Amino acid sequence: MLNDLKHRVYEANLELVKRNLVIYTWGNVSAVSRDEKLIVIKPSGVTYESMTPFDMVVVDFNGNVVDGNLKPSSDTLTHIELYKAFKQIGAIVHTHSTYAVAWAQACRPIPAYGTTHADHFYGDIPCTRILTQQEVESGYEKETGKVIVETFKGIDPVHMPGVLVGSHGPFAWGETPSKAVYNAVVLEEVARMALISEQLGAKSPVPGYILDKHFSRKHGKDAYYGQK
Amino acid sequence: MLNDLKHRVYEANLELVKRNLVIYTWGNVSAVSRDEKLIVIKPSGVTYESMTPFDMVVVDFNGNVVDGNLKPSSDTLTHIELYKAFKQIGAIVHTHSTYAVAWAQACRPIPAYGTTHADHFYGDIPCTRILTQQEVESGYEKETGKVIVETFKGIDPVHMPGVLVGSHGPFAWGETPSKAVYNAVVLEEVARMALISEQLGAKSPVPGYILDKHFSRKHGKDAYYGQK
Amino acid sequence: MLNDLKHRVYEANLELVKRNLVIYTWGNVSAVSRDEKLIVIKPSGVTYESMTPFDMVVVDFNGNVVDGNLKPSSDTLTHIELYKAFKQIGAIVHTHSTYAVAWAQACRPIPAYGTTHADHFYGDIPCTRILTQQEVESGYEKETGKVIVETFKGIDPVHMPGVLVGSHGPFAWGETPSKAVYNAVVLEEVARMALISEQLGAKSPVPGYILDKHFSRKHGKDAYYGQK
Amino acid sequence: MLNDLKHRVYEANLELVKRNLVIYTWGNVSAVSRDEKLIVIKPSGVTYESMTPFDMVVVDFNGNVVDGNLKPSSDTLTHIELYKAFKQIGAIVHTHSTYAVAWAQACRPIPAYGTTHADHFYGDIPCTRILTQQEVESGYEKETGKVIVETFKGIDPVHMPGVLVGSHGPFAWGETPSKAVYNAVVLEEVARMALISEQLGAKSPVPGYILDKHFSRKHGKDAYYGQK
Repeated sequence: MLNDLKHRVYEANLELVKRNLVIYTWGNVSAVSRDEKLIVIKPSGVTYESMTPFDMVVVDFNGNVVDGNLKPSSDTLTHIELYKAFKQIGAIVHTHSTYAVAWAQACRPIPAYGTTHADHFYGDIPCTRILTQQEVESGYEKETGKVIVETFKGIDPVHMPGVLVGSHGPFAWGETPSKAVYNAVVLEEVARMALISEQLGAKSPVPGYILDKHFSRKHGKDAYYGQK
Repeated sequence: MLNDLKHRVYEANLELVKRNLVIYTWGNVSAVSRDEKLIVIKPSGVTYESMTPFDMVVVDFNGNVVDGNLKPSSDTLTHIELYKAFKQIGAIVHTHSTYAVAWAQACRPIPAYGTTHADHFYGDIPCTRILTQQEVESGYEKETGKVIVETFKGIDPVHMPGVLVGSHGPFAWGETPSKAVYNAVVLEEVARMALISEQLGAKSPVPGYILDKHFSRKHGKDAYYGQK
Repeated sequence: MLNDLKHRVYEANLELVKRNLVIYTWGNVSAVSRDEKLIVIKPSGVTYESMTPFDMVVVDFNGNVVDGNLKPSSDTLTHIELYKAFKQIGAIVHTHSTYAVAWAQACRPIPAYGTTHADHFYGDIPCTRILTQQEVESGYEKETGKVIVETFKGIDPVHMPGVLVGSHGPFAWGETPSKAVYNAVVLEEVARMALISEQLGAKSPVPGYILDKHFSRKHGKDAYYGQK
Repeated sequence: MLNDLKHRVYEANLELVKRNLVIYTWGNVSAVSRDEKLIVIKPSGVTYESMTPFDMVVVDFNGNVVDGNLKPSSDTLTHIELYKAFKQIGAIVHTHSTYAVAWAQACRPIPAYGTTHADHFYGDIPCTRILTQQEVESGYEKETGKVIVETFKGIDPVHMPGVLVGSHGPFAWGETPSKAVYNAVVLEEVARMALISEQLGAKSPVPGYILDKHFSRKHGKDAYYGQK
């Protein structure tokens, strides 16, 4: 069932290790089949070294397992909320990468200090508010997804392929599993660059006309970066 | 004698190198056999590359060598104090990992700034007071163990599987040698995340209800993370 | 066409990966044939792992492709401006290396705090002003080259083989592709050292007579470092 | 000539690369034969990858080459001054390792903030004054050695096996080439730990009685660390 997608989700999970975004079992990648309304996701608490593509778990949009012998990631309900709200995305990554977590723990959006950021994220990367006690107790993972969606009111998730959850850490997404991992890697790198920039005295984000220029060099109908 | 435990202690010591927690001979892992009242520990000052499982030293609870040709770790008496006071733990790790040492040198507990911390340590990671001159002179390593135990008055070592010794560095523990190393790795990572979070302006620890939620997702009877 | 130069540009591009200056496709190396008035440059958006020496693109000084099946780097017009203005240089490197980008995002020149810097850059490494909206809209990449040239009024590019573009990142150069990469590596390292030096309280650059001594140990007619 | 010493100096130079203390040609190791009054040192500007044990250069105490086809390190006269003044040392290492250089560029001694430092350096690691213009012009490398010796007035180089040269970087030493490299590695690590400790608010060095205890655990007649 969804074998091709299982393989791609599996490979993207391993890429998290190779790119130094996770240690032990601290992260997960999922992808969605919009046609079949099914999601493929990493199993919970299984090490990257020991798992195979066939350990990937298939769940429906209610979180019920429809294929697989293992329990899905404990963050599955968060992924589902994002797939429901952000129709254009095909894959989601969650990690505890160091610098992105630090911004999340400081409860701060990451300012767009330069063109590396502008090439990938069209503006400051938002940080959600911290969940209330009632939200945490009534359904923690689902409410985590909902507070991300709330934060994106007025923000296009295609132009802003990542977010920080306050006190927690980053989620990133993209059309495919490998593009979602790419965005998670970039989020971590711009988080690190932004910290160092502030330590050197950076105060103002990049001007809007440079943000526009760099984002549109790589995205949208007038993009001219790459071979297309 | 205790061959299986020697192998596991040996493997856990090598894991310290692989996880970048130690250089040269700067760290040690031990494990206890509660039935036989014996401890298996790394030999003192021996490099990880040159040692074998059979170089692990067996000592009793008074620190006497009962098996092995080498001298045990100079920190052996510290380990023994912890095994005596913390009945539920099975293995102990001591390292000089960079970020944990820096918090210890600043004589500060590590605040629980987010969910990565809360997943593993149920509250701020404590830092002991600095030993007095009399304690240092009367039996330095044993007194190091005693000041850790003093610091844990009212703290459950199963919920708080690590500590900083003021001006010195971290100790971590767990049920098994590999779980103790896991906790030492996490302690170093949350030490690094907490530093960066403060550099970004973090002031308040994670709310208590999120600390509760994350710790109980992974620990205790209602845990639902992983495959059990 | 220019096969030898293509190979050297190719190797220098791979060196960027090996030296941890780039991830994914974030950087490019070019070289110039002064005799033939042609430039060899990395293709745009192609990964280092997949490309071959024969994927290098040859362009003339107007940016027209004269050999190759791929589109040249989107930064080609910046390189061309530098080759036109700095007659003595043979190769150029552009990266988004972390520490150099951070100084660029803080819009600050890198002070010459010590002899590591003085061995390679004869004074503070300059940072350009940020481009105006009109410059960005009228021809972004060409104007990036022009603002570098403007910044070097009165500075000899042979004595100062690198620059930061404000809000963007570093360019470095040299006689050959491998020397240009060397200077890009050193720029990143001195950027990192200068940050840490400031964190430790450094306030004053190295005295001029030590700057003179160290630069002249390695450069110019009285150089005595190395085997020549 | 001195073949065994050449091999050990060669291996120690390669160890600098393996331990991440140097890039390119930025460092050198030497050793002395006290009996023959000769010094074996790395050749100047030669890469670690291309050199062999037979490329090591033998010089006398006046800096004259007595064996070898290459020019000795440009820092040779600094090494000679140290061998002349510090009779107990057998080998010297010079690097531009990042954190040690940063302290040198900030012209600050490294405070002994904890036991990792105390295990190896008996007190704050000193930093020399910056050389005067006259010293730089009259014989830069020899004067660098002399200012180190001046700084060690009243300090035993066996108890303090390293130093920072103001605005420049670290030198370390030991009985043998491998012990000198060990001390250079430790110097870099305690430099990094001390920076982070200060960022976390560390203000006071470790108490004298802990400094005494830790240094004497590893050094001198009452040492009990290791297998001797």
